Amino acid sequence: MKEHLNKPIAISMGDAAGIGPEIIAKAFDAAPELTRGCFVVGDVATMRRATALISGKALVLPVAAIESAGEVSTVPPRCIPVLQLGTLKELVPFGQLSASAGRLAAECVVWAANAALRGDVAALVTAPLHKEALALAGPPHSAYPGHTEMLQALSAAHVGKSVVDLPVRMMLANDELRVVLVSIHVALREALDAVTLDNVSQTLRITHDSLQALLGRPPRIAVAGLNPHAGEGGLFGREEINVIAPAVAMARQQGMQVFGPFAPDTVFMRARKKSGQVGEFDVVVAMYHDQGLIPVKYLGVETGVNVTLGLPLVRTSPDHGTAFDIAGTGRADASSLLAAIRTARGLVSLR
Amino acid sequence: MKEHLNKPIAISMGDAAGIGPEIIAKAFDAAPELTRGCFVVGDVATMRRATALISGKALVLPVAAIESAGEVSTVPPRCIPVLQLGTLKELVPFGQLSASAGRLAAECVVWAANAALRGDVAALVTAPLHKEALALAGPPHSAYPGHTEMLQALSAAHVGKSVVDLPVRMMLANDELRVVLVSIHVALREALDAVTLDNVSQTLRITHDSLQALLGRPPRIAVAGLNPHAGEGGLFGREEINVIAPAVAMARQQGMQVFGPFAPDTVFMRARKKSGQVGEFDVVVAMYHDQGLIPVKYLGVETGVNVTLGLPLVRTSPDHGTAFDIAGTGRADASSLLAAIRTARGLVSLR
Repeated sequence: MKEHLNKPIAISMGDAAGIGPEIIAKAFDAAPELTRGCFVVGDVATMRRATALISGKALVLPVAAIESAGEVSTVPPRCIPVLQLGTLKELVPFGQLSASAGRLAAECVVWAANAALRGDVAALVTAPLHKEALALAGPPHSAYPGHTEMLQALSAAHVGKSVVDLPVRMMLANDELRVVLVSIHVALREALDAVTLDNVSQTLRITHDSLQALLGRPPRIAVAGLNPHAGEGGLFGREEINVIAPAVAMARQQGMQVFGPFAPDTVFMRARKKSGQVGEFDVVVAMYHDQGLIPVKYLGVETGVNVTLGLPLVRTSPDHGTAFDIAGTGRADASSLLAAIRTARGLVSLR
Repeated sequence: MKEHLNKPIAISMGDAAGIGPEIIAKAFDAAPELTRGCFVVGDVATMRRATALISGKALVLPVAAIESAGEVSTVPPRCIPVLQLGTLKELVPFGQLSASAGRLAAECVVWAANAALRGDVAALVTAPLHKEALALAGPPHSAYPGHTEMLQALSAAHVGKSVVDLPVRMMLANDELRVVLVSIHVALREALDAVTLDNVSQTLRITHDSLQALLGRPPRIAVAGLNPHAGEGGLFGREEINVIAPAVAMARQQGMQVFGPFAPDTVFMRARKKSGQVGEFDVVVAMYHDQGLIPVKYLGVETGVNVTLGLPLVRTSPDHGTAFDIAGTGRADASSLLAAIRTARGLVSLR
C-alpha cells in the first residue's frame, strides 16, 4: 500500500522578485494533469501577479488560498492552491534583491521540507531562490549558501543526526546526462580542497545507492579527474593518484561499478546518451560544480533537473536560477520546472 | 601576390605508437584535394605501416620519401610525401609509451616549426604526441608539457624575444563554439594562480586580434567567471571582482567588445551556434583547460580543431590525443585532423 503516492507535492515559490512564481503559474496552466495534487508554498498576492504574466489567455488562472496540505484535494481543477506563508508587506519589485523576498523564499523551503520530513507531502520541488537575497535574509537562513545546505540541516535535525553524518550530493540530470557533484556552492579554490578520499568515497556511495534505487539495477559510474587529462600520469597534478584512484579502487572492492578517473574533457561526452544509443555510463561523478554543470547545461537549460541525493525526502528543482533579468516580462520558460515535477513523481513512485 | 598560398603545409607525425600516423594516412586517402601540397614530417616506415591500417582498399596508398619541403610538388597525386626525420631503430609497438617515439615526435615538431618560421612552409598541422612520452624524451624536449609550449619557445627564439614577451593562447573550435584558454597544461591548482590581471588581459588582447583577423570584424568576446555562478557577487570567491571584471573593463576601454564575467555553467550554452542561429558571442574566454574543453568536446571530438593564437606562424591540430587504446586497430577517425588541415588553409588564405 503506497499511500505516499496520493500525498500532495509541495512547490516552494522561490524568490518573489525572480521567475519562480511565473514558471509555477505556467506549469499549472500548461500541465493540469502533471500538477494535479501539487500546491505552492508561498505568497498568494505574488502568485496572483504571476498568473497575469501568462499571455494570450482570456481567463487568468485562479489562485486558491489553502491552510494545510490536506486541503489540496478540495481545490477545484484549473486553480492554483497556495499555502500562504509569512507576510510580504507589499509586492516586491521584479528583478530586485531584497531581504524580505530572501526571507520568505527561505521560510517556504523550511515549511515544505518539514512537511516532507513529517510525511505530510510526498516530495518537495523548489523554485529558484536568489543566493544573495538568502544571504541578506538574516539568521538562520543566511547561514546557508543555498537550498541543498538548508535541506541537509533540516533533515539532519529531523533524524537527530549531525549534518556531517547526513552527507548529501547534488545530481543534475537531463534526457542525455546525469552528473553528481563532489562539492557545489563554494569558491573553486575551496572545491579543490574538498577533493578528499572521504568526500569522493562518500559521493560514490551516495551515487551508487541513489541510482540503484532510481534505475532498479547497479549504476555504471564514471569518475572525472580533477586536473587536465586527469593529471596525465601525475604531470599536471597528483589528486588523481593520491585521492581519486584510491577512492575508485575502494568503491570497486565494495562491489560498485565505478570506472576512472577519466580525462574531464571527454568523460561527459562518453557518458552522453545520444539519439537511440545509451551512453557508456549511467552517471558521471564530477569533482566540482562547473565541471559537471557545464556539460549538463550546454545543450540548453530547458529540461535540466536538480535532485538532492542522500536526503530522507524527495527533492527536485529546475536547474536554472531566478533570472532577475527577465523576471516580470512573461518570457520565463517552465520546461525545467515541469521536468522537475515529473522527476519528483518518478522518484516518489519508486520509494 | 600571396606566395605563401602555394607553399606546402607540414603535418608533424605525432607519437608513432599512437593514432597520428593512421589518421594522417586516412586524411590523404579520404581527401586528396584538401591534402594536395601537404607533407608529413616523420618516419617513412611508420607511415607505411599506417597506410596498411586503412581497410577495404585493394591498393595500399604509396609513401614517397622526400628530402625537403620543396620536393612536395614533385610527388605524384595519391601518394603521401614523407620527410624522414631522426632514426627509429625499429617500428615502435602500438599503444606503448617510449622515449624514442616521444623524441621523434618532438623532433618532427621542431623541424616543422622552424620550417614555418623560415617561411619554407605555409602552416603547421600537428598530429597528437603523447605528453608522458615527451617527458621521457629527454632534454630539451622534456622541458615542454606539450606542443604549445614548444612552439612558443621556438617562435620566441626565432624572433629574438623571451618567451614571456611572446604570449600565446590555445583556441579550440568546432562548428558550434570557439573557446580560448587562459591556461592549459597545468594542474588545476596552478591554473587558479594563473588567473591574474595580466594573464586575463593578455588573453583578451590575443583573442581580439586573432579573431579580428579570422572573422574580418571585431569579435564579440564572452568571458567566463572562475567560480560557480561567477562568484555570485563575491559569495563563492572573489577572483571575478578582483581580477576578471577589471580586465574586462580595461579591454572595453581599449575598444574591444568584451562581456562578462558570466556564470561558467551557462556562458558556453549562450555562445553556442545552434542550427541556423548565430550564438550570442563569437568566442568564449575560459579561465582554465577543462572549463573550455568540456563544452567544445561534449558533442563529440570528431570535428574539433586546436589553433595556437599569438604565434608568428599558423598552427592547427586535431583536438584529441594519441588514443593509445585503439592505436593499430584501424578504428581511428581522421575527421578532426581533416578539420585542422581545412582550418590551417583558411588561416593561411587570410594572412
